[in-house]
Amino acid sequence: MCQLLGMNCNVPTDIIFSFTGFATRGGRTDHHNDGWGIAFFEGNGVRHFVDYQAAVASPIADLIKSCPIKSKNVISHIRKATQGRVALENCHPFVRELWGRYWVFAHNGDLKNFMPTLDGPYRPVGTTDSEWAFCYLLQQLRKRFGDRLPVLAELTPALQELTEEIASHGVFNMMLSDGSALFAHCATNLHYIVRQYPFAEAHLSDEDLSVDFSQVTTPNDRVAVIVTEPLTANEVWTQFKPGELKVFVDGMPIE
Amino acid sequence: MCQLLGMNCNVPTDIIFSFTGFATRGGRTDHHNDGWGIAFFEGNGVRHFVDYQAAVASPIADLIKSCPIKSKNVISHIRKATQGRVALENCHPFVRELWGRYWVFAHNGDLKNFMPTLDGPYRPVGTTDSEWAFCYLLQQLRKRFGDRLPVLAELTPALQELTEEIASHGVFNMMLSDGSALFAHCATNLHYIVRQYPFAEAHLSDEDLSVDFSQVTTPNDRVAVIVTEPLTANEVWTQFKPGELKVFVDGMPIE
Repeated sequence: MCQLLGMNCNVPTDIIFSFTGFATRGGRTDHHNDGWGIAFFEGNGVRHFVDYQAAVASPIADLIKSCPIKSKNVISHIRKATQGRVALENCHPFVRELWGRYWVFAHNGDLKNFMPTLDGPYRPVGTTDSEWAFCYLLQQLRKRFGDRLPVLAELTPALQELTEEIASHGVFNMMLSDGSALFAHCATNLHYIVRQYPFAEAHLSDEDLSVDFSQVTTPNDRVAVIVTEPLTANEVWTQFKPGELKVFVDGMPIE
Repeated sequence: MCQLLGMNCNVPTDIIFSFTGFATRGGRTDHHNDGWGIAFFEGNGVRHFVDYQAAVASPIADLIKSCPIKSKNVISHIRKATQGRVALENCHPFVRELWGRYWVFAHNGDLKNFMPTLDGPYRPVGTTDSEWAFCYLLQQLRKRFGDRLPVLAELTPALQELTEEIASHGVFNMMLSDGSALFAHCATNLHYIVRQYPFAEAHLSDEDLSVDFSQVTTPNDRVAVIVTEPLTANEVWTQFKPGELKVFVDGMPIE
């Protein structure tokens, strides 16, 4: 199994604090050492970093921990291989283009014998169940909406149906973003927190690191962090219900 | 206009020496300071780094210059914006998936009013003529070969036709790779060199940096470097002919 981290904000924010705790689970405080990855939206563009090394041993992860890349939507993943060998092409998140937007996807779980027909333009490059599910998901969205980018009110029920269908084949915790919203589906384990004014101090569970968010924010900032297991012990995280799809926009869940 | 750098090898090789000279043109020895990017194939996977900062000022470029990422196919680009604003989504190289492979593309030149109909699955995310041409190129390949990955002997003449067609609309120097071969099309300016046994010392034109390749290679290694303007003054570079498409496999041009 793996772990997921996502961030959705109303203003571009760096993820150094959360990623530092999360990456420590990639080989030190936890055993997710078969690769890692992170994708940051910046406008319509995406910065995408993947590595098959453990996050705790990766020079690219060190760069992410030291270099404040600001983004409104971030998805990260640390991998414990279940299906697909340890290789760059099997590291999450995966990125594809649909409707002139990049879509970023990461999965935690294990789908059993889930290989639906892929007769659209999306094919997996690697050998994970996760990338197959992502290709299927985009293919089905494209079949449903054609060449037209749907509005969020149309997209959300379509994703609810699709994630439910895929989740019937195994464990399917996942995060998906097109840079305007972050969709998070919980099968077994996912938590979130919304940090907003008045901001307080947070202390990581996996590293001896604290940050006083009131010193680095403005009263208008709002940041949602979504993660497999809570990153801090001194804050209140909300656990997703199994089967729940939440949509985060501008730093908060809208449904 | 921009500049292009490509590398194709028979064994995974790092590009630190060539990239160090090339990146210096991204704001110091030349004026290509509207962003840069580089993509490395590793197996079927791709490491993709883009930045809208000048290469000489980018912490990610510093990482590439200090961290030996080994690859058999690399494409890099430094940007001087002609069409499309300075933004992450307009930085080359671009990456898309076709036939279960990633395709990496970068362009140097300027296409005038070239907006052919895009009725396939590929749409530009940014606003450059280059990404539009890339989407068209993949669309046309997919129309021609359907869902089947063609062999190189089929793909090459198809790319010859397509690059010729696109080049009739403006300047179209470009590099394209799927990780198994590197295709380079010259409209106006492109050079290459094949380094192989017996290896010698090379000295960069843009930085005071030399490397004695005989100390860092084995007699079986072969590396082709393709670039807009030669990177060294003490080696013999071959200039492409205008209109020429060369295909590099295992460190040498095969046609």
